[in-house]
Amino acid sequence: MNDVPALDPTGPTQELVSDVFARGCASRAVFEDVTSKWASLALLALGEGRYRFNALRRRIDGVSERMLSQTLQTLERDGMLTREVLTAIPPRVEYSLTPLGAGVAEQLRGLVELLEASVPELQTARERERG
Amino acid sequence: MNDVPALDPTGPTQELVSDVFARGCASRAVFEDVTSKWASLALLALGEGRYRFNALRRRIDGVSERMLSQTLQTLERDGMLTREVLTAIPPRVEYSLTPLGAGVAEQLRGLVELLEASVPELQTARERERG
Repeated sequence: MNDVPALDPTGPTQELVSDVFARGCASRAVFEDVTSKWASLALLALGEGRYRFNALRRRIDGVSERMLSQTLQTLERDGMLTREVLTAIPPRVEYSLTPLGAGVAEQLRGLVELLEASVPELQTARERERG
Repeated sequence: MNDVPALDPTGPTQELVSDVFARGCASRAVFEDVTSKWASLALLALGEGRYRFNALRRRIDGVSERMLSQTLQTLERDGMLTREVLTAIPPRVEYSLTPLGAGVAEQLRGLVELLEASVPELQTARERERG
């Protein structure tokens, strides 16, 4: 007899390793979702506070209704935001970040601050090159 | 007579304000460049150290030669990386991050670490929902 339980590769003892470089890894899929063109701007905007759909659309200069709608669905599926329907006449829908979404938005904010601070300098350097 | 110099809106005293939410802002263009699918992975990889083209291609699972080449050109133009040709037979080309590129890579690394840590939990929650 053997007391050692058989290894169950699907069981809860399996160590889950995430690797964003691996094509099939879920972390890579979510990374692509949150860094995609409109999703990153939506997360950044919602990092400022709750938004209704139309206000969010105005905040993100250039996004279409359709693209914003798809983007918000993806982010909701990924657990980044919550969609709340408020009973009012007419009904109001508000979007807000989950704690995970807020963490992601904070990281993106750090990146944006770095770029916003660096871009003028980069542009000046490029214009100097052009002569 | 008037000693106050006329305001020159194109002169060096003009304050440059970057806003990633504005469609025409250079910071938004660079933000889109560095967060694009392959660029973000290339920056993350180069955050680990210098890479030759083929080694970088192997590190970034799934990227084509053409896409990686385009991506590296864009990142070089944006001042994120340096392309160095080493005199050897055959000649070797190595890519490494500039200080700005290293800063961007560090911010992306923070985002990836958050996601790699959160994804297993999210997946478990989703599987539980499915029943």
